Amino acid sequence: MNGAFFGDMLQSISDRGRKLLDRTLSRRPDSVTRSADFVVLCDDLLSGRGEASGVALAREILNRYATLTTGPRVAFFEALAQRFGPDRERMDKAIAAWQADPNDATAAEVHHAAEPRRQELFRRLNLAPGGTAALVRMREQLLDAMAHRDDFKVVDADFVHLFSSWFNRGFLVLRSIDWSTPANILEKLIKHEAVHKIRSWDDLRRRIDPSDRCCFAFFHPALNDEPLIFVEVALTDDIPGAIEPILAAKRDTLEADKVDTAVFYSISNCQRGLAGVSFGNFLIKQVVEEISKDNAKLQTFVTLSPVPGFASWLNRERTSGSSRALTQNDIDALANLDIEGWWQVPETREPVEEPLMRAAAWYFLYAKSPRGLPIDPVARFHLGNGARLEKMHFLADSSENGMKQAYGVMVNYLYDLDDIEKNHEAFAENRVVVTANAIRKMARPGPTGDVVPLANKA
Amino acid sequence: MNGAFFGDMLQSISDRGRKLLDRTLSRRPDSVTRSADFVVLCDDLLSGRGEASGVALAREILNRYATLTTGPRVAFFEALAQRFGPDRERMDKAIAAWQADPNDATAAEVHHAAEPRRQELFRRLNLAPGGTAALVRMREQLLDAMAHRDDFKVVDADFVHLFSSWFNRGFLVLRSIDWSTPANILEKLIKHEAVHKIRSWDDLRRRIDPSDRCCFAFFHPALNDEPLIFVEVALTDDIPGAIEPILAAKRDTLEADKVDTAVFYSISNCQRGLAGVSFGNFLIKQVVEEISKDNAKLQTFVTLSPVPGFASWLNRERTSGSSRALTQNDIDALANLDIEGWWQVPETREPVEEPLMRAAAWYFLYAKSPRGLPIDPVARFHLGNGARLEKMHFLADSSENGMKQAYGVMVNYLYDLDDIEKNHEAFAENRVVVTANAIRKMARPGPTGDVVPLANKA
Amino acid sequence: MNGAFFGDMLQSISDRGRKLLDRTLSRRPDSVTRSADFVVLCDDLLSGRGEASGVALAREILNRYATLTTGPRVAFFEALAQRFGPDRERMDKAIAAWQADPNDATAAEVHHAAEPRRQELFRRLNLAPGGTAALVRMREQLLDAMAHRDDFKVVDADFVHLFSSWFNRGFLVLRSIDWSTPANILEKLIKHEAVHKIRSWDDLRRRIDPSDRCCFAFFHPALNDEPLIFVEVALTDDIPGAIEPILAAKRDTLEADKVDTAVFYSISNCQRGLAGVSFGNFLIKQVVEEISKDNAKLQTFVTLSPVPGFASWLNRERTSGSSRALTQNDIDALANLDIEGWWQVPETREPVEEPLMRAAAWYFLYAKSPRGLPIDPVARFHLGNGARLEKMHFLADSSENGMKQAYGVMVNYLYDLDDIEKNHEAFAENRVVVTANAIRKMARPGPTGDVVPLANKA
Amino acid sequence: MNGAFFGDMLQSISDRGRKLLDRTLSRRPDSVTRSADFVVLCDDLLSGRGEASGVALAREILNRYATLTTGPRVAFFEALAQRFGPDRERMDKAIAAWQADPNDATAAEVHHAAEPRRQELFRRLNLAPGGTAALVRMREQLLDAMAHRDDFKVVDADFVHLFSSWFNRGFLVLRSIDWSTPANILEKLIKHEAVHKIRSWDDLRRRIDPSDRCCFAFFHPALNDEPLIFVEVALTDDIPGAIEPILAAKRDTLEADKVDTAVFYSISNCQRGLAGVSFGNFLIKQVVEEISKDNAKLQTFVTLSPVPGFASWLNRERTSGSSRALTQNDIDALANLDIEGWWQVPETREPVEEPLMRAAAWYFLYAKSPRGLPIDPVARFHLGNGARLEKMHFLADSSENGMKQAYGVMVNYLYDLDDIEKNHEAFAENRVVVTANAIRKMARPGPTGDVVPLANKA
Repeated sequence: MNGAFFGDMLQSISDRGRKLLDRTLSRRPDSVTRSADFVVLCDDLLSGRGEASGVALAREILNRYATLTTGPRVAFFEALAQRFGPDRERMDKAIAAWQADPNDATAAEVHHAAEPRRQELFRRLNLAPGGTAALVRMREQLLDAMAHRDDFKVVDADFVHLFSSWFNRGFLVLRSIDWSTPANILEKLIKHEAVHKIRSWDDLRRRIDPSDRCCFAFFHPALNDEPLIFVEVALTDDIPGAIEPILAAKRDTLEADKVDTAVFYSISNCQRGLAGVSFGNFLIKQVVEEISKDNAKLQTFVTLSPVPGFASWLNRERTSGSSRALTQNDIDALANLDIEGWWQVPETREPVEEPLMRAAAWYFLYAKSPRGLPIDPVARFHLGNGARLEKMHFLADSSENGMKQAYGVMVNYLYDLDDIEKNHEAFAENRVVVTANAIRKMARPGPTGDVVPLANKA
Repeated sequence: MNGAFFGDMLQSISDRGRKLLDRTLSRRPDSVTRSADFVVLCDDLLSGRGEASGVALAREILNRYATLTTGPRVAFFEALAQRFGPDRERMDKAIAAWQADPNDATAAEVHHAAEPRRQELFRRLNLAPGGTAALVRMREQLLDAMAHRDDFKVVDADFVHLFSSWFNRGFLVLRSIDWSTPANILEKLIKHEAVHKIRSWDDLRRRIDPSDRCCFAFFHPALNDEPLIFVEVALTDDIPGAIEPILAAKRDTLEADKVDTAVFYSISNCQRGLAGVSFGNFLIKQVVEEISKDNAKLQTFVTLSPVPGFASWLNRERTSGSSRALTQNDIDALANLDIEGWWQVPETREPVEEPLMRAAAWYFLYAKSPRGLPIDPVARFHLGNGARLEKMHFLADSSENGMKQAYGVMVNYLYDLDDIEKNHEAFAENRVVVTANAIRKMARPGPTGDVVPLANKA
Repeated sequence: MNGAFFGDMLQSISDRGRKLLDRTLSRRPDSVTRSADFVVLCDDLLSGRGEASGVALAREILNRYATLTTGPRVAFFEALAQRFGPDRERMDKAIAAWQADPNDATAAEVHHAAEPRRQELFRRLNLAPGGTAALVRMREQLLDAMAHRDDFKVVDADFVHLFSSWFNRGFLVLRSIDWSTPANILEKLIKHEAVHKIRSWDDLRRRIDPSDRCCFAFFHPALNDEPLIFVEVALTDDIPGAIEPILAAKRDTLEADKVDTAVFYSISNCQRGLAGVSFGNFLIKQVVEEISKDNAKLQTFVTLSPVPGFASWLNRERTSGSSRALTQNDIDALANLDIEGWWQVPETREPVEEPLMRAAAWYFLYAKSPRGLPIDPVARFHLGNGARLEKMHFLADSSENGMKQAYGVMVNYLYDLDDIEKNHEAFAENRVVVTANAIRKMARPGPTGDVVPLANKA
Repeated sequence: MNGAFFGDMLQSISDRGRKLLDRTLSRRPDSVTRSADFVVLCDDLLSGRGEASGVALAREILNRYATLTTGPRVAFFEALAQRFGPDRERMDKAIAAWQADPNDATAAEVHHAAEPRRQELFRRLNLAPGGTAALVRMREQLLDAMAHRDDFKVVDADFVHLFSSWFNRGFLVLRSIDWSTPANILEKLIKHEAVHKIRSWDDLRRRIDPSDRCCFAFFHPALNDEPLIFVEVALTDDIPGAIEPILAAKRDTLEADKVDTAVFYSISNCQRGLAGVSFGNFLIKQVVEEISKDNAKLQTFVTLSPVPGFASWLNRERTSGSSRALTQNDIDALANLDIEGWWQVPETREPVEEPLMRAAAWYFLYAKSPRGLPIDPVARFHLGNGARLEKMHFLADSSENGMKQAYGVMVNYLYDLDDIEKNHEAFAENRVVVTANAIRKMARPGPTGDVVPLANKA
């Protein structure tokens, strides 16, 4: 599909429409960049004037939006929240009709009347060339503003609803990324890699060019050359226990006939504005299928994952005075963690290992949020996809970040296609954390009443 | 975008999930192809079981749907209408909450509760590989069934709502069609051309290969190689007054430097299942822009259009006994139309011409539907796009169909980019039929109180 | 590679250069389209004037050549033969230098001096946009003219030399042809199919669209959208013994998992101007590899081939009075062949079968040209590629052409990749016709001293 | 064209053939990597064994060649020079036949006999997958070896002859290079930029991504993803007088409607192995046409070029004792050039300017090689293309390299499409250096008898 070509055309058709608009706008006071004027323009757009000027008006609104500074932007969000909600009068009328005669037609009118007017506004803004990308950026800025404004949540919900429909998995396209991928796409990988920072184009090349490395991303036809999410994969002959050998600048490429394991060592979202629209689980499963086709000998699909919540949880346990996860001996031994460079000398490293890994096992099995889910976000993601927590590794990531967030611990989640569904259901319905037996055995007893993990093969 | 590639992958991921499903299904009684079982499967899909099996389940439902005969299919539509509407209990609860405390959150819950469950069902079916195409076909069959079942309209409304979002203009791709277009796309033009039948591959080639002919179509990323709508264009040095010279098997190609007019002589939809989702107006406007870029000398954009409602309207007028459009002399002269081959001999042709064309002028200006719109559907389409009725032609289409539907009359609608918006608004807001003055002058007086056409340039 | 894009550019650069040329040419008498003037233009081109005007000049010559009628064209070929041979004076000088001091440098000068000036002329004409295609067409016309003019052979040899270098296999691109191939390419298949005529677009579609049919062609980057040669393949579960079932309008598609045989049933060249530049053997071998990759179960690669020289050879034998291939009984039985529709009734068909097939065996094994090669051109091609004559079929092609050229006989040549090389060498070095034993046993004794076929597996 | 696809296939077909070869080779002594064995393999390849093993043999030779160390490589070149020249016996026989009866046939045999056998060897090596690239690399290594071995020139001449035919301009494809070009191509620009080093990916991006910068390269179908030559272009509103503003990290992009000049500021070859096969002049002319199409307002096409031979020529003049180009006053003033950082302070910079630029004018006009051509290689290239030396600039390139080779001087060559041909011919035929009058006036008188430059417009 020739997106650029299409874009050009949209541009020109709306250029013409814009002239018409400009005539109209020029009759207004100058201050059209104030948020009040946006509201007027948005009302115009919703009022359903002609389609050609509709496209032009949408473009105008998005162009002017792009120039707003923070203040007017927040004012615009306020207007969206307060003035583009459902039409309450129409709602009440529709409800009255429904209550008088509850049928499909009156129900449909309730449905339409209760739809926030924002949704239609966003749909019309989406007609502008580049409209989808502009709306994704708008939501990014809304998310920033939401940090302080709970009243913007209603606006956000409408974005999520529309984006979920527009970024429906059926419209996503999986593309393999390698060293012959256009540079303007590759630079976005460098920018958005969130797990193990890509330090340079050489570093990037090492991750996508060798025959034992691959990378895949989802794209959407309306977001030209913008990856939505990508995953980096190492093909190996063993389940890896540390990240450094994978990212090493100098290493030998593994011959194709020795490969039997695919390691997903990094998954990153590229569009903050699409937060909450889930593609990650589709991505992993499709990539599993895709690389299986080219590598018949692949048998094991596994991640090498960070444990982002572990260090802060452990520190709380160490100081809580009433830890179920740690004995006093453990706490004493783990005091070594407070010594600078503890992992570099045996004196401080060795006493730490056993209690640290035992604590990690407890963390995965029993450290739960109020809703009963693992507090570790990466664990929630992979277990929710139906993976099994397979192995834990001591000192697997001694980068600054790895030490800070997890005292160097990394883990493998195993995607066993025969068990994914069963695991997923156990997790979704009963919050069962499916782990290898070895990990369960390692942990101290969990809280009474916690879900007993299912027996499993490992 | 590599649709085929993507399709393969979806296929394989859901193949695996399907195995899981098959195990489940095999525990059920055999009769899963009965519509009752569909309802069970659809309920399962909506109940939100695991995502991998969700894709497999969606695929299963669509595959089985494809094998249904008419009876079970209608039973399935009944179930969609009756059992997958809004959740009334939830609605009543939401309404009560809203009435107790009308705010954005309670309004949102009313909105969600009132959404027919069909919509979410269709969204989930759309996750299957080829799901979009399957749903478009499902609606085609629904449209057939609706001929006898008014209760299916609620189902249809949900299709239209979702398709309008999925086939949003921002996701459509315009592609030029010519003799280097893949044959599997070209054969769809042959199949779907609705205005002037394409008789053979040679006929097709004459319409798209010469340098003074072009063709454009809209495509959607989820419907591989399936044009949605296409328009055929002749580049000429004059506004044409008949279709035959344009379609002639032998004619000279006009040299590029003599071209100053683009004639849109056929627009056809290819997807009956997308009826009601409008792309035609976007198509014409984009094609105008597109061909303008390549032909700087193009000044005139005009259709050569059929008048599908004219003959039957005229016959009613001739026999009504109280026609405002025709005098008795007209009626007498038009009696020649009942003579076989009237247009082939001067004796019957000549008396017809003047009253026929005068009647046509009246037809366009004053023959209105109860809602005040022109009864001619092609007129409604082009006038609604902002075009102007520019010229009318006697004996412009003497094909069997042309004679039958319009006694050979064809017309030109002119797209003048500077007036489109103004015309569109005049039509949309005041139902003004914008025509060349010559046509207005030609017609007998219209009904008292009819909208007075605006003065215009022509 | 974007050939069209590239072509546009060449066009424009030489447009400008042409203006310069036109100024020059306009100083000459008008009669530049006479062949004499061509010679002047060609001399100018060879004289190495500026490169920009060189391109323009090349284009001018080719444009004017394209307008020549037969007479001037032949005069031009005469000029090529007589005036653009080697520079004899330079040759004699170079030879004298070589004879005085035979070394690499003097040898090189002999080589260059002896090169016909035509070769450099053709190289320079090839700089014009579309030059390669124009030269291929020029040679087509030369081949026509050669029918009567032996003196043009020297010109032809230079074409073959250059085309062999330009159409080097390393520069050819194999492309799969199917129903999604552009129509402008497909129509060339219809035009050039030389073995089993393609009767319509429907017939074409039956040959390339079903999953058990495929087609491949070689292309060259300088000949946009022009296939050079193509092969049609049927995937079957048996070695076929007749062409009609393969070409049948109605037949069931064979399921992919039942396919074990690939049948090459038609190979056609598209460029008569490239006659003598061999690609056929490369094509078959590459297609074998290509389809093997997609169909792991394919085990047998076989042709279903016509026997174009059989009927005329047999008729000579029947009437020669001294046939070694036929007994008198054979000759008597074969007299039935002279009866109209002999194959349609058992009375004439049955007596023919045994002697006809026995004669065919003799034909393949012993009917040789003066150079000791099989007189059948298709046999020479496949045996030369290393294939083995595997089976012969009675009444395998009862089309008019099949009856006329071979009394309905068709044969299979088997490509066994393990034997290709050995077979090829036996044929190339010792003219051994490798056949299945069954065929050898069937034939009457061959001429004394004929090469004894190698024992082989069959 | 799908080069990679095609490559795969060639690979597999020759894999099979290679097995056959291996059987043969294994009967030979082990030492096949010695150059003697190459000669045997090359003789085998020339002896015309079967085509399938021919491809395999060619691949084998190239693979083994790739592993050779310098010694055996030189030995192989020796064998090429000594053992694969023309067949002298055949030559003498052919010459005798020609002398007995000089006609086209005997001349043709002289031509063929005198062709070095290397040429056919290279043609056959070119059948291997990747053969063209391997031969280009082989010539690179030959060029290195030639530094010490005049006897290898004959081998080199054969490479140049074949490459000129294979890299015929008609087979080259011009492609625009920008930030959406695949990274594996872009890295080759970084590697091969020879004029103004590209320091990083950021530097590269600044040269190809902004809308007022562009870049074009020639590609060849047989060298996948390998640019042959590329040119970097800045779009400006003035003829630039220095390189730094063009390469600056921070600068404003010029708006499209202000652009009227295209500046070719860097042309680099990427394939040392293709030295002597000229594409540069075609490249510039095609790029002129290409960018003209997109920028109707472009009027001026000009280079900003280095003067690589100036400093060393000037230093010779300053010390020769008999310079015609410099007066004694000039020599005294130019002594400042020997002071470190002379250009950074007015005291040393100002006295230098006038005599330096005057000397530069003399250098361009009168400093000639023994063959009468300008000694400056960049001047030879552009003047040979028909450009005019338009302007000279003082301190236009103060990079280390710019100072070292030309004391900071840069110049503009102007490509005026109306004069290119005339200029080219004046230069080619009469060695006229076409310059702006201002430059001619600036220079001291040239040597008596030097070609008087034509009057020209400037």
